[in-house]
Amino acid sequence: MKKTLLCCLVLSAMAAQAQQNLVKYVKPLIGTEKMGHTYPGATVPFGAVQLSPETDTIPYEMNGKYNGDVYKYCAGYKYEDKTIVGFSHTHFSGTGHSDLGDFLIMPTQGKLQLNPGTASNPKGGYRSAFSHANEVAEAGYYKVKLDDDNILAEMTTTNRVGMHQYTFPKSDQSHIILDLMAGIYNYDDKTIWTYVRVVNDTLVTGYRQTYGWARTRTVYFAMSFSKPFKNYGQRNYDARQAYRGFWGKFDQNKNFPEIAGKKVRMFFDFDTQEGEKIKIKFALSPVSQENALQNMRAEITGWDFDKVKTQAQATWNKELAKINISASEDDKTNFYTAMYHAFINPTTYTDVNGQYKGLDQDVHTAKGFTNYTTFSLWDTYRALHPFFNIVQPTRNNDMVKSMLAHYDQSSLHMLPIWSHYANDNWCMSGYHSVSVIADAVIKGVFNGDANKALDACVATAKHRNYEGIGYYMDLGYIPAERSGVSVSNTLEYAYDDWAIAQMAKKLNRMDVYDEFIKRSANWKNNFDKATGFMRPKLADGTFKKDFDVLSTHSQGFIEGNSWNYSFFVPQDPAGLIEMMGGKKKFAAKLDTLFTMHLPDEFFADTEDITREGIIGGYVHGNEPAHHVAYFYNWADQPYKTQAQVRHILKMQYKPTPDGLGGNDDCGQMSAWYMFSSLGFYPVSPGGDEYTLGSPAVNNATLTLENGKTFTVEAINQSDKNVYVQKVLLNGKELAKPFIKHSDITNGGKLTFYMSAKPKKS
Amino acid sequence: MKKTLLCCLVLSAMAAQAQQNLVKYVKPLIGTEKMGHTYPGATVPFGAVQLSPETDTIPYEMNGKYNGDVYKYCAGYKYEDKTIVGFSHTHFSGTGHSDLGDFLIMPTQGKLQLNPGTASNPKGGYRSAFSHANEVAEAGYYKVKLDDDNILAEMTTTNRVGMHQYTFPKSDQSHIILDLMAGIYNYDDKTIWTYVRVVNDTLVTGYRQTYGWARTRTVYFAMSFSKPFKNYGQRNYDARQAYRGFWGKFDQNKNFPEIAGKKVRMFFDFDTQEGEKIKIKFALSPVSQENALQNMRAEITGWDFDKVKTQAQATWNKELAKINISASEDDKTNFYTAMYHAFINPTTYTDVNGQYKGLDQDVHTAKGFTNYTTFSLWDTYRALHPFFNIVQPTRNNDMVKSMLAHYDQSSLHMLPIWSHYANDNWCMSGYHSVSVIADAVIKGVFNGDANKALDACVATAKHRNYEGIGYYMDLGYIPAERSGVSVSNTLEYAYDDWAIAQMAKKLNRMDVYDEFIKRSANWKNNFDKATGFMRPKLADGTFKKDFDVLSTHSQGFIEGNSWNYSFFVPQDPAGLIEMMGGKKKFAAKLDTLFTMHLPDEFFADTEDITREGIIGGYVHGNEPAHHVAYFYNWADQPYKTQAQVRHILKMQYKPTPDGLGGNDDCGQMSAWYMFSSLGFYPVSPGGDEYTLGSPAVNNATLTLENGKTFTVEAINQSDKNVYVQKVLLNGKELAKPFIKHSDITNGGKLTFYMSAKPKKS
Repeated sequence: MKKTLLCCLVLSAMAAQAQQNLVKYVKPLIGTEKMGHTYPGATVPFGAVQLSPETDTIPYEMNGKYNGDVYKYCAGYKYEDKTIVGFSHTHFSGTGHSDLGDFLIMPTQGKLQLNPGTASNPKGGYRSAFSHANEVAEAGYYKVKLDDDNILAEMTTTNRVGMHQYTFPKSDQSHIILDLMAGIYNYDDKTIWTYVRVVNDTLVTGYRQTYGWARTRTVYFAMSFSKPFKNYGQRNYDARQAYRGFWGKFDQNKNFPEIAGKKVRMFFDFDTQEGEKIKIKFALSPVSQENALQNMRAEITGWDFDKVKTQAQATWNKELAKINISASEDDKTNFYTAMYHAFINPTTYTDVNGQYKGLDQDVHTAKGFTNYTTFSLWDTYRALHPFFNIVQPTRNNDMVKSMLAHYDQSSLHMLPIWSHYANDNWCMSGYHSVSVIADAVIKGVFNGDANKALDACVATAKHRNYEGIGYYMDLGYIPAERSGVSVSNTLEYAYDDWAIAQMAKKLNRMDVYDEFIKRSANWKNNFDKATGFMRPKLADGTFKKDFDVLSTHSQGFIEGNSWNYSFFVPQDPAGLIEMMGGKKKFAAKLDTLFTMHLPDEFFADTEDITREGIIGGYVHGNEPAHHVAYFYNWADQPYKTQAQVRHILKMQYKPTPDGLGGNDDCGQMSAWYMFSSLGFYPVSPGGDEYTLGSPAVNNATLTLENGKTFTVEAINQSDKNVYVQKVLLNGKELAKPFIKHSDITNGGKLTFYMSAKPKKS
Repeated sequence: MKKTLLCCLVLSAMAAQAQQNLVKYVKPLIGTEKMGHTYPGATVPFGAVQLSPETDTIPYEMNGKYNGDVYKYCAGYKYEDKTIVGFSHTHFSGTGHSDLGDFLIMPTQGKLQLNPGTASNPKGGYRSAFSHANEVAEAGYYKVKLDDDNILAEMTTTNRVGMHQYTFPKSDQSHIILDLMAGIYNYDDKTIWTYVRVVNDTLVTGYRQTYGWARTRTVYFAMSFSKPFKNYGQRNYDARQAYRGFWGKFDQNKNFPEIAGKKVRMFFDFDTQEGEKIKIKFALSPVSQENALQNMRAEITGWDFDKVKTQAQATWNKELAKINISASEDDKTNFYTAMYHAFINPTTYTDVNGQYKGLDQDVHTAKGFTNYTTFSLWDTYRALHPFFNIVQPTRNNDMVKSMLAHYDQSSLHMLPIWSHYANDNWCMSGYHSVSVIADAVIKGVFNGDANKALDACVATAKHRNYEGIGYYMDLGYIPAERSGVSVSNTLEYAYDDWAIAQMAKKLNRMDVYDEFIKRSANWKNNFDKATGFMRPKLADGTFKKDFDVLSTHSQGFIEGNSWNYSFFVPQDPAGLIEMMGGKKKFAAKLDTLFTMHLPDEFFADTEDITREGIIGGYVHGNEPAHHVAYFYNWADQPYKTQAQVRHILKMQYKPTPDGLGGNDDCGQMSAWYMFSSLGFYPVSPGGDEYTLGSPAVNNATLTLENGKTFTVEAINQSDKNVYVQKVLLNGKELAKPFIKHSDITNGGKLTFYMSAKPKKS
């Protein structure tokens, strides 16, 4: 009886949550201006399709040289722009390098134009002017009016299928353009091959293969129209293709269904009545056209756009309801948008039949898990995956399995570094998948073979041919002569090694523990006691002389100078404090970091952030210092952690298009926001502790997958009352600002008593 | 008892045949000099792998223009050449355009050279001088000494796996080169992508994608070494690849296992003792690396080269024993080499697990049949597939099923024209797969859904966008203004239409029969009674004025002038005779064809043949006239058929490298040889009749798949006794020089009585 009643209560509570409209707090436009690099289009949680507008498609290279402006278009869309080129189906969220932008669709009418045109003269091509007044971006839905041709564009998605709805004026020259040359971070020979079949007058299938950040990448598609096209055609812009073979027997420009080449654009012609809607279902697959078609048929039956949109938003509401907060409207917008941005990566990389393309470029079947891709691990190991271990443990378990499948398929015998679409692009430093794996093992989230997972971690950490690991293993650091990022790497390897050691200890693999706990102290080798900073060390064991603690470039660091990286010892704050001369000196140094002025010459060196993304010398827009504000807790000055965290939350996250102070980095910035808003943070993933900050919500209830709830209550919390007076866990006061993972997963309540006054004792 | 006895007799007869060494009569070098375009390397019957030497790898294009010399290298090997570049795994036999040459392997020793070098300076690259004195080419086996580095190269194959055996001198610098840039009919950007994984120190897998005659073609491989390599490496010759991504973190030149790019060569290093053999198993798949590996494991276990060679030759003996002839040694060599050349195409295109890549570029499973590719149908519909209907009906049934699968996968809804490796290259005229299908249906060889097959034939024959079919359907001919090959096409379509009609009649689809039997008379529309020749007709219905019956180019014909094509009415010899003014005039015209002189200016226009490939104006080296020598039978002068056929057999087929007077064309020339040597020929496939010629064997026993035998006996036959006096079928004299297909399949004996004197009555 009691059990049944409890069950009913839980179910009705969940139902109540599911019915809440949390989608209204999601503003996908947040971060689309300046440095956020988010995209505003439609996607579902962890969806394989990200259907979103491109406001420009400028090339990565001009005349064989890097074109700096392309960086702005990592997500395809810049809020500042005035034109839309089209809508493509794959996007990264918040990255600082890019790829994707597959299968750009653009509706037009009037004289057919197959070139994209320019921002200054949109009427010279198929692109169109638009204004934000006519734009709506919601979780799972995007709408914009295309001014040039008076066409309303709407889009929504399921996991693997994008659905377009275009409302045309009356015209006997209405067109849907499919630009197979367009892409993000494009260059002249990036598209290696395109293949398209027009199966009938409503169905087109094909694939495109690119050579970009992902070196060997093929995406297959199936495209279905709600209305038969009256004509279709292609143009092949590869000057050389005319030579080859006997295809000239056919007139290939019009209604010719077998299309292949390196530079192809297609068009489909319609007669439309005033206000007539033409809809497209556009399914993706990493495996085959057949699978794309199967995905389409499995996920969307019929042509009810509103139904698909409603389903997409219901799915979002269900996911967002995993945390129910009480806070100001702006904070709710920030929080649920952060949650949205956290839940759109990694992305699903399994077809409905379980197949996916592996790193070995063969087709595999994911047995008992969903395979994911888009692992920006240097960013996301810090807070995003730990966040998933609380509210998305099933998915995070599958993500770890995806990483291990990647390892199994790697001829290098390495876990992913930064992987997307059956490739590793080797971006950034460290081997942080080991942190994600260790964290999932330590926290009981991973249900696979943990010993095998540990072996994969160890193999990766001993890959001598990768980024100085050989030197690191032999010398305990990477000589500055051998690498421009020698210190970052040594510090990050040392942290990762600690994570491996934790996992080894849990698995009672003490030989591994001993080896890696020793390696985890290697950070000390780059610490220069004379200056109190991390400093590049030469092969002869002496520190590099010509060295500026403010500079980043070629100084041994990546996305962070020595000021930021000197605090990168998340695995041993006590050790670092000792090295830096004790708690007082340590806290004073932190104070300096947050209050110093970074001269413009050094700001110019930073990446991925705006001027506003910096607090003193602390660079929140980059990740290496994400844990640093919490370090005051170890220096007996938790009130400074509380103040700084609240300051960062306010300063770096605003409910506006330019509201993100740096790249969202596949959800890492957003995960930091959520943890910090909830009042706790995982400083060192791979450990089972969270340290406490200052909750920015009045109340938050986390509904866990095990059916339990964990509630954070912040009594007397306000923008001014940022200081914690005491904290009770299930009614019992905490002596120290730490809780364990099990404190959350067991369910319970964490009560913060807040005040405007810092509690300094 | 009786049955058992019969069975025993059949079995022991078959065993006796299987034990015969017929392989010794196979000389793969026949046709490798001058125009034969055959390859000398190792393959098994209808094998997916053709492992054969390349004597040069010159480009198809130079500075963007066609390089005429490349034509010599359609099969990769020219007997005239003095150097070998390497050994690759895919070759066409006897084609006049080309592709393939995948995965070139070359053993070397000494200083590593990764460029192929030139014919004039082989030591400047990895190629090597060789001499024919040190070369052995057998069915299923090839051996050559590579003089430059004193390495003995041997190769043999199974269906899907090539096996190499290289005997090295003592060296600490022995190498195996894998050149992934090499190819036949190559050009700068033909290789679109290469992907290779070094799985361990004896196993490498990967694939290569090319854009050539087959527009979208990928071949996967798995390569296994008998001995671990001590080092390996790659060079990427694509100047642009250095830009891309973060792969520079690794030293990729040496022992780096993840390789991808557009222009890749690899090498594997060994220490070798004097006389040490290094062996390679090299498996192909159209589907995946995994399938290639599965093919390898299924087909070759262990490293016994001699065992694989013995198996390959036993397989050949078994196939060759299907016809057991008594003839001179030279004729036996010609006959069994022709049989060999007939049985190496089409090629297997199914993995051991039944999977293959379809024309739609998706992976399919062949259910209940082996899928074949390499359909040079304009050539092979004439005699090769009819030959298969007698001695390879199971395979021909599967070939028809392969064509129908191709049709099912075609977004153009067309049967193959000239298909290879999941592509149609659209080479040559007509839609002759309908002839192959009709012939298999009429002769009871096809066991699938014949009505569906007929529908596919009809759809293909009504494809208005293909090569003037629309005009042909509307006007009954193709206007000369619209096509440079208008007459060839009209004549060939008309024949194909007759074949469709025959199939329709058998299936009692009389509407289809009526339509197509009418179309089959369209040849009359191009016949100019005033001149007695087939002649291009203009859109206004008048014949083209400026016209020379000797000329081919842009005169309405392809691979044949009006003199040859004027006889291209295999479906209605009687109608043609009537048009040409009766039997006497017709026979006189044939006489002129065989005795006239073709001036040099017109010879220069012909393709694919040598001067010796011409008899008067009759061009045996091209196919359109292959039936013409038999036409005397319809003009009541069969003795002239007998004389001409024997003359052609002697003149055009010699047991020497330069022994073929024209391209072997995937076995069509060879099939003509075998039919004609046996004394009968299928003038009009799709009908069930063979017309008789003059057997060049003393005796031949065909062992059929149904267990029956059909024997041809030629009493008193010799090089002089070419004239038939009478013919008995199972002891009963034939009134006319024709037999039916069922006369063969029922088993029995055809006895020719030969003499030196023509029987003119």
